[in-house]
Amino acid sequence: MPYGDLDQLAINTIRILAVDATAKSNSGHPGAPMGMAPVSHILFNKFMTFNPKNPDWLNRDRFVLSNGHGCMLQYALLHLFGYALSMDDIKNFRQVDSITPGHPEAHDTPGVEVTTGPLGQGFANAVGLAIAQAHSAAVFNKPGYDLINNHTYVFFGDGCAMEGIASEAASTAGHLQLGNLIAIYDDNHISIDGDTAVAFTEDVMKRFEAYGWHTQWVEQGDTDLDAIEAAIEKARQVKDKPSVIKLTTTIGYGSELQGTHGVHGNPLKSNDIKGVKQKFGFDPEKSFVVPQEVYDMYHKHADEGAAAEEEWNKLFAKYKEEHKELGADLARRLTRDLPEGWQEKLPTYKPSDPAIASRKLSESVLEAIHDVLPELISGSADLTGSNNTRWKKAVDFQPPSTGLGSWEGRYMRYGVREHGMAGIMNGMSAYGTIIPAGGTFLNFVSYAAGSVRLSALSHQRVIYIATHDSIGLGEDGPTHQPIETLAHFRALPNIMVWRPADGNETSAAYYMALTSKETPSIIALTRQNLPQLEGSTLGDAIKGGYTALENEGAQITLVSTGSEVSIALEAVKYLKEKKNITARVVSLPCWEVFDAQPKEYKLKVIPDGIPSLSVEVMSTMGWEKYSHEQFGLNRFGASGPYKEVYAKFEFTPEGIAKRAVATIDYYKEVKPLRSPINRAFLQLI
Amino acid sequence: MPYGDLDQLAINTIRILAVDATAKSNSGHPGAPMGMAPVSHILFNKFMTFNPKNPDWLNRDRFVLSNGHGCMLQYALLHLFGYALSMDDIKNFRQVDSITPGHPEAHDTPGVEVTTGPLGQGFANAVGLAIAQAHSAAVFNKPGYDLINNHTYVFFGDGCAMEGIASEAASTAGHLQLGNLIAIYDDNHISIDGDTAVAFTEDVMKRFEAYGWHTQWVEQGDTDLDAIEAAIEKARQVKDKPSVIKLTTTIGYGSELQGTHGVHGNPLKSNDIKGVKQKFGFDPEKSFVVPQEVYDMYHKHADEGAAAEEEWNKLFAKYKEEHKELGADLARRLTRDLPEGWQEKLPTYKPSDPAIASRKLSESVLEAIHDVLPELISGSADLTGSNNTRWKKAVDFQPPSTGLGSWEGRYMRYGVREHGMAGIMNGMSAYGTIIPAGGTFLNFVSYAAGSVRLSALSHQRVIYIATHDSIGLGEDGPTHQPIETLAHFRALPNIMVWRPADGNETSAAYYMALTSKETPSIIALTRQNLPQLEGSTLGDAIKGGYTALENEGAQITLVSTGSEVSIALEAVKYLKEKKNITARVVSLPCWEVFDAQPKEYKLKVIPDGIPSLSVEVMSTMGWEKYSHEQFGLNRFGASGPYKEVYAKFEFTPEGIAKRAVATIDYYKEVKPLRSPINRAFLQLI
Ligand SMILES: [Ca+2]
Ligand SMILES: [Ca+2]
Repeated sequence: MPYGDLDQLAINTIRILAVDATAKSNSGHPGAPMGMAPVSHILFNKFMTFNPKNPDWLNRDRFVLSNGHGCMLQYALLHLFGYALSMDDIKNFRQVDSITPGHPEAHDTPGVEVTTGPLGQGFANAVGLAIAQAHSAAVFNKPGYDLINNHTYVFFGDGCAMEGIASEAASTAGHLQLGNLIAIYDDNHISIDGDTAVAFTEDVMKRFEAYGWHTQWVEQGDTDLDAIEAAIEKARQVKDKPSVIKLTTTIGYGSELQGTHGVHGNPLKSNDIKGVKQKFGFDPEKSFVVPQEVYDMYHKHADEGAAAEEEWNKLFAKYKEEHKELGADLARRLTRDLPEGWQEKLPTYKPSDPAIASRKLSESVLEAIHDVLPELISGSADLTGSNNTRWKKAVDFQPPSTGLGSWEGRYMRYGVREHGMAGIMNGMSAYGTIIPAGGTFLNFVSYAAGSVRLSALSHQRVIYIATHDSIGLGEDGPTHQPIETLAHFRALPNIMVWRPADGNETSAAYYMALTSKETPSIIALTRQNLPQLEGSTLGDAIKGGYTALENEGAQITLVSTGSEVSIALEAVKYLKEKKNITARVVSLPCWEVFDAQPKEYKLKVIPDGIPSLSVEVMSTMGWEKYSHEQFGLNRFGASGPYKEVYAKFEFTPEGIAKRAVATIDYYKEVKPLRSPINRAFLQLI
Repeated sequence: MPYGDLDQLAINTIRILAVDATAKSNSGHPGAPMGMAPVSHILFNKFMTFNPKNPDWLNRDRFVLSNGHGCMLQYALLHLFGYALSMDDIKNFRQVDSITPGHPEAHDTPGVEVTTGPLGQGFANAVGLAIAQAHSAAVFNKPGYDLINNHTYVFFGDGCAMEGIASEAASTAGHLQLGNLIAIYDDNHISIDGDTAVAFTEDVMKRFEAYGWHTQWVEQGDTDLDAIEAAIEKARQVKDKPSVIKLTTTIGYGSELQGTHGVHGNPLKSNDIKGVKQKFGFDPEKSFVVPQEVYDMYHKHADEGAAAEEEWNKLFAKYKEEHKELGADLARRLTRDLPEGWQEKLPTYKPSDPAIASRKLSESVLEAIHDVLPELISGSADLTGSNNTRWKKAVDFQPPSTGLGSWEGRYMRYGVREHGMAGIMNGMSAYGTIIPAGGTFLNFVSYAAGSVRLSALSHQRVIYIATHDSIGLGEDGPTHQPIETLAHFRALPNIMVWRPADGNETSAAYYMALTSKETPSIIALTRQNLPQLEGSTLGDAIKGGYTALENEGAQITLVSTGSEVSIALEAVKYLKEKKNITARVVSLPCWEVFDAQPKEYKLKVIPDGIPSLSVEVMSTMGWEKYSHEQFGLNRFGASGPYKEVYAKFEFTPEGIAKRAVATIDYYKEVKPLRSPINRAFLQLI
């Protein structure tokens, strides 16, 4: 169908909404929306299927704006198509407590699939969404029931194209031959520093070809609507590889400053705004104007989407009759609830059970639960044998043509791409049918910090399996031994950082990680063996902290995590034998979960009246919240057999006892000696 | 010259040393050394110029092992060529306090240029070393004085090739046309997860071509020594672009398990070791054997390197006569001392000076000092106008053919590549003639966490200019507002995290960052304006913390940083007026520097007897070290005008005062009320 005036009007309406909103807030990025309005119009109105009245419909096409600073583009589209995003919301762009924040946030705004803005993230998310689609299609689609066949579209700019995370994700997507993934590269030759010639002169399409993508170039992305349509159509026909379309556009198209970075991150000047409106046939004196025919056209398409969903709902109803088990499984997954009774599969341990590394305990959990939790997809950033992330009978998620696995496979080979893995997992989780878990060494979760932050901010149930969690990894040495890592992620809001001390605590970590629908988890696990504790139970450990050893008349509380809990328990014996001092031990595998317990409980665990000493073989930062004094490691570690490294830094019963004695002595005269659980006021959360 | 038996003997000696050392330590990676011994032999013995007796000689060729887990390869080479790394050191591989740790650490081991192991880092470091070479050559070389013309060689494996940081650095290197950079890709088709076919099927050479690199492929990397030599020779002749050689090798060449991941990260079994030795004509019963003729050959090459240095020293002596100023400048730079009196250029401020955003104050520092510190090279990850990292007359570091700058240019356009930038800066710093400073938003320093950690671990004087340091950035919202970031880097050893409150503190941050030869710095700077404080001086601020407002009879100390110090000072007035409470204020712009002050001083700043309350608009984590109670933000921020965002979270004089009252009340009855500066015992550092 040839494009006409109404199409152009719609395109210009999008542009002008972006101009008006950034002007009103005196903040934001008009340039990308103005440049990408044409392709957005075609994509949303011609190709994408979605129902604005139900943004959660499973089989909707997914749209990701990886260049999230252009979010007024997305907000304009959502508004025009009839999502629950009003013109007042547009007028409140970038205002406190609005649903139109400065970058798109999935949990704030209906129709926003993933939280973007930090560059490169959305691209990786899109790869994850496409993986989830391919996997879910393989699991659920049956003859006559093409239930899950949506496309994932992602827009990205030069900034995303430069980011390493996008390179990692693009290489992964090429390897995985993700045919339903279509990326549109806004090739406008401008980034914040000006012309991309100053730093970015590579041949982007050639690079994508090297990754195994299908590539196209639309030279006149501002005006050649037919070419844009043809390219998207062609990309949809390519089923054996992901597609990228390089779309050469003019940033800020229509502005006096078009084609310059002056229009990237600043509202247009008022003269310029008037000029743009005149050029596009709008009244220069009016703002936030949407011609009714634009609404009408877009609402018509939205109605088609609603009808498509209705059809789909019927199909799914029939599917649930014919494929009862699968249908029930899919319906359940969409609630994000786990199957009833699944937790009975979690391993539990007695003190007499053998000492085992917690990375192996984690493996036992995966082995035990993978059958009852079909939504769990494990994987590793090329450390499968070290992270112990793979259950024995796991099948790789691989294109069947590789002969290495299948689309139904539930084990991801992420390659040595930690940041890409994390960004991909955020997308997999956002799809709605999958719980992704991915492994690397704890130290290299830091490579993924940008994405881990977004797991937390955007409420994704993603599980980071982080092995080799301390100097206890031994010989690999300081380059691999985390010091600051737990402090880093404990300081990040809305993420659970677990460091289990034994088997029951490891099961507890998984229980909480899997049942917390809106919170990601990092589970820090040892390379070295750990004994099963006397005092641990799954029920205690899911409180995040508990008394691992009570002792009447205790003079000090030792508060510890992970591999140091058993050393602290040894220290109790040493203190009694050598110093006649009575001590008690608290295991605190997850601060965030412990913090959420009633104060009364927390005060029983870390009581008033006696001092407490924290024991953890890494940065002491933050331990003051739970202890009066801190024994840790505020320096880099050392390369050597782990027992020798522990001894070098005095993480031995003697070393702990020495500091316990000093702590008791120091606090003798302080009255009242309050538990650090007591505070003068509550924090804002 | 044709290769003969002695060459093969040397190659096999390297292999067997790696086998013996990993066997003795029962830990480590024999596979990469066995596969890369041939190219190492040719590179080190035929091409590289270096003097093992002086690993610091400026014009030495640089070698980087980006696949640092193969460090026994490097240790073997260093030993054989006569560096201060004895056979006993080899035997102590991966033992506590040895100079042969599990991954190469530059400050531990003579001849190791940069600290590698975390994958991809060495590749970026090599790009930085090559940039430093190109820049230093442009600055110092004169007709007849080709003083600085070394090559930088880097080995990298599949792991590095998959990492985003290497992609970023490779794209940068291609753009910069770094002709003296030669990368050798160990294409052995194996990573920890097995065959690279499971995750890594892209065309790596095509990707490098897309970046603008010259590419070659040596198909028989195990045996075709002539082809290896020819490829390196060819790469050296290519002067207008960086070169990469894909070298197809067999991991663990010679082992029964060669070509499998079984030989990647585990010592060979004893049978296998015997077999390898027999195959290579070594006595299977002996270990750590080096044939004298191998020593002789390598020592001869080392002698040639020593002679080359002697020639160079003569040339440099003559240069210092003829080009007095430049000669003196280069000689000074090599000491890492700054020019005498440079600090007099640092701006200082009076309270009556206007309020200025600290990112602008930082710009003023750069403007003021860039002339006296020619070794300072600034730059930004595509946020030049936002980071304010560029002095007015700065020239870009660019290949002259681009018409955008010159090799002498001192401003780097890193592109949107934070991790690459940081890894490149580590390499630039390691070169020895440059102090790199690079900008991004504080929130996106997290993208670079892997490299920032190595700045700290490897003692590089790198400066991170981190603007938009809090919710004070306003409208960009939670995706861009740091919460956990300062806690993260404060928990990292050997790095200064500065958050200056005004102009004098900003100058102090730069003073310390520039004069600390072995410590990197992060300088967190505001987007919003800050008033010049009454109580601040450069002399006080370089102590990391000082009393910004003393008040006789104070009932509470408010401890704060950056943009919150002036709000805390307002709170003091509010407390006096509304509550008749007397408060004092401490500014603590850098914990690490404050920690290093004498205890007596610290106790004057945060005294016994009255409670203290910290005020910082991000995670409270760690503030317990300096305060009894903490006012912070342990949740994500909000998108909106910054004053409204501050008000939403009660970071106002009233909000602070409310918490100060609660704190005073809570600690009224505690006796003795000790300053948190007092501790029961000292930490290990
Ligand atoms: Ca762009
Ligand atoms: Ca490899």
